[in-house]
Amino acid sequence: MAEGQAQQTEREDEDWGLDSRVVAAILDAVEAGDSIALASLLEDLHAADIADLLEQIGGSERRALLRLWSGEIDGDTLSELDEALREEVIEYLPREVLAEAVRELDSDDVVDLIEDLDRPQQDIILDALEESDRAAVQQSLTYPEYSAGRLMQREVVTAPEHWTVGETIDFLRAEDWLPDQFYHVILVDPRHRPVAYVTLGRLLSSARAVKLRDIVEDSFRSVKVTDEEGDVAYAFNQYHLISVPVVDETERLVGVITIDDAMAVLDEEHEEDILRLAGVGDESLADRVLETARLRFVWLFVNLITAILASVVIAQFADEIDRLVALAVLMPIVASMGGNAGTQSMTVAVRSIATRDLTVRNAWRVIRRELAVGAINGLGFGVIMAGVAAVWFGVPMLAAVIALAMLLTLVAAALGGIVIPILLDRFGVDPALASGPFVTTVTDVVGFFAFLGLASVVLL
Amino acid sequence: MAEGQAQQTEREDEDWGLDSRVVAAILDAVEAGDSIALASLLEDLHAADIADLLEQIGGSERRALLRLWSGEIDGDTLSELDEALREEVIEYLPREVLAEAVRELDSDDVVDLIEDLDRPQQDIILDALEESDRAAVQQSLTYPEYSAGRLMQREVVTAPEHWTVGETIDFLRAEDWLPDQFYHVILVDPRHRPVAYVTLGRLLSSARAVKLRDIVEDSFRSVKVTDEEGDVAYAFNQYHLISVPVVDETERLVGVITIDDAMAVLDEEHEEDILRLAGVGDESLADRVLETARLRFVWLFVNLITAILASVVIAQFADEIDRLVALAVLMPIVASMGGNAGTQSMTVAVRSIATRDLTVRNAWRVIRRELAVGAINGLGFGVIMAGVAAVWFGVPMLAAVIALAMLLTLVAAALGGIVIPILLDRFGVDPALASGPFVTTVTDVVGFFAFLGLASVVLL
Repeated sequence: MAEGQAQQTEREDEDWGLDSRVVAAILDAVEAGDSIALASLLEDLHAADIADLLEQIGGSERRALLRLWSGEIDGDTLSELDEALREEVIEYLPREVLAEAVRELDSDDVVDLIEDLDRPQQDIILDALEESDRAAVQQSLTYPEYSAGRLMQREVVTAPEHWTVGETIDFLRAEDWLPDQFYHVILVDPRHRPVAYVTLGRLLSSARAVKLRDIVEDSFRSVKVTDEEGDVAYAFNQYHLISVPVVDETERLVGVITIDDAMAVLDEEHEEDILRLAGVGDESLADRVLETARLRFVWLFVNLITAILASVVIAQFADEIDRLVALAVLMPIVASMGGNAGTQSMTVAVRSIATRDLTVRNAWRVIRRELAVGAINGLGFGVIMAGVAAVWFGVPMLAAVIALAMLLTLVAAALGGIVIPILLDRFGVDPALASGPFVTTVTDVVGFFAFLGLASVVLL
Repeated sequence: MAEGQAQQTEREDEDWGLDSRVVAAILDAVEAGDSIALASLLEDLHAADIADLLEQIGGSERRALLRLWSGEIDGDTLSELDEALREEVIEYLPREVLAEAVRELDSDDVVDLIEDLDRPQQDIILDALEESDRAAVQQSLTYPEYSAGRLMQREVVTAPEHWTVGETIDFLRAEDWLPDQFYHVILVDPRHRPVAYVTLGRLLSSARAVKLRDIVEDSFRSVKVTDEEGDVAYAFNQYHLISVPVVDETERLVGVITIDDAMAVLDEEHEEDILRLAGVGDESLADRVLETARLRFVWLFVNLITAILASVVIAQFADEIDRLVALAVLMPIVASMGGNAGTQSMTVAVRSIATRDLTVRNAWRVIRRELAVGAINGLGFGVIMAGVAAVWFGVPMLAAVIALAMLLTLVAAALGGIVIPILLDRFGVDPALASGPFVTTVTDVVGFFAFLGLASVVLL
């Protein structure tokens, strides 16, 4: 049992990311300046884990580690590094180390590595590549950012339509340039346009005499170099694709996108949505303090305008508050409930738009549904708050006022939460990024105005 | 040009989800009761698109469509349906249609289909399966929910370690039970424990005489049936895996998980995080209104407690507000800024914990970093609000008070936003679900208390 437990722990450490004992040993080796121990410890780690390690340790530890180890850093580790750190690390590497590291990479990984670098750094890396690779990378960089052209790898395994399984296998055995990972043999017509594909499993399990065209997959899809990577990732997820041919404007095959790239895009887009909804730009833990503060400042500033607007509403009712201070005590409750209910509706709307579950077809149904939910919860919390206000302040009419204000605010929150993202999306603005301030403005202004306005009419 | 445009539109519709003209034609066929037109329209659609269609149309349209078409619904469409709708649709299907639909599915898809159904519905589907499939599904259901055992498919392609490429290909050609998609041949020892794997690409490009053990992948990982699906998905994403063998407690091979399943899990977990951060449970657009209202009510109720707590703080300063009503006007600004800054820090923390970028190793560094960001923005907004307050109310000391309150609140927001998720995670509570109310309590209470408390000391 105890042994099983130990084995379990070991396995988990091995399988799921960095083991803290290994990290401790690495930092010890760095401190001791022991480059042999360091190299042997890092050799056992996956490039993704080494990148995580570099991101998680402090700046001075990172520089010390790179100083001791830099000669052996490989292209995969550079690829895995967070963008915010990549520049720093690349600047730190001797030119010949960098050149050797990038020469190992596939063209799509080089593109991913350099597309966000400064021009001088880009040139250093491009110069390090062999002539043909450089041309391929430069070609990819001519496609728009976030397009299928940037995402695809150019190494593609194709076969003429008329080949048999045997001919294809003989061809594959003779070639030595095959990509590390490929999942289909793509059938092309004489003009190099993709027409179908065969999975490697079908190829392996069919007799040599079988024609490729008799074992192609039922469904065949291709994407254009200019398609957005987000749409491509959606297609992978929706249709359970494993790889997809990429064609240029003349329908000729120019590359292939595989599921691991699509998975990375999906992951990034999700991350972006979460952070944008919270008013945090595309920030990462590796960003510097000032950069982080600047990015967040912008969002908080927009929020400040919203908050001041709400305060202007409150200021209109200064006399009422002066006469009944309970209004000042209770008003933040109405605004806060409205803000939270609005965020709920808004988040569901933003996600449903992203996953294409919310469309023109069902928009009206979804809006009616949100209004119904807002009304139900508005009634519920109206009743609860009426009870709280009555007990706390003993003014029955104040209870009636807060109940009605709560209902109005939660219905407005539901409406704003769903309609604002839909409208922003319709006008081509990312609803994840821009909905928040609008929704908060609606809920704050309606919340304060409904509560204080009703109070001024009914109570005073 | 115009033709190119039209072609582009057509392609987009074909590639990315449902074409609204197709949907219109389908609804027309349903209304006309034309089951032949309906069947031919639906035949061209991918199962995932049919499921989306069923989710997006209204309840009565859905029932009419199923009535006309139900005989031809297939297992894939049922698999793709949102959980909230699956029960409704299954209930609506004649038993023999249901039986035929599920018999086409792989064991992992059947498990996914039935694991959330009520017992009687589960039994109907299990009864429809053939004896051996039923046993496989029942075995999978004995593994914990959200475990690798639930996620894996049991159809695995294996070979003894000593085989050659030729022997393996002959074996694959002879078998007729191979899974639809597989990416590796897994080498097993005599006790059926997986020891390595070969990609199909390597198999196809190697000569018949080559030994499998000479072309295995460098890195080999397996997961346990009891591992959490979230951890498995993390490993796929971190290490760019394409498929992974699953072993039982005796290390024997029992199944395999492929990247499309891992991608689906990653997608779900992201979705869950986004919705939980916004205080929306695991809700979908297909849920009924009352169910949605109930789920959101719970979260809003927790928020109400927080808001009342803040109001209690305000009530302590009723006299001060009575004497200077500007306090009531300005106080929501401080609380709102605190709430938003807290949400920013909290979201970054929650995501960094989920992606394992925030660990014990760098927690202190990240906390210090957040505090610095909070202090910088606190100073910035303190100065801005001092200006606003001075101009608006002409009371210099009020400007000083709001500046200091803003600084204190934004620092508290930064601290709460980062420390609360870390602590919740340490205690085994999902930080995405639970951080919000705690962080809001901190920012509201600190915000109101700092502003009104300072005012009472300095101003009155």
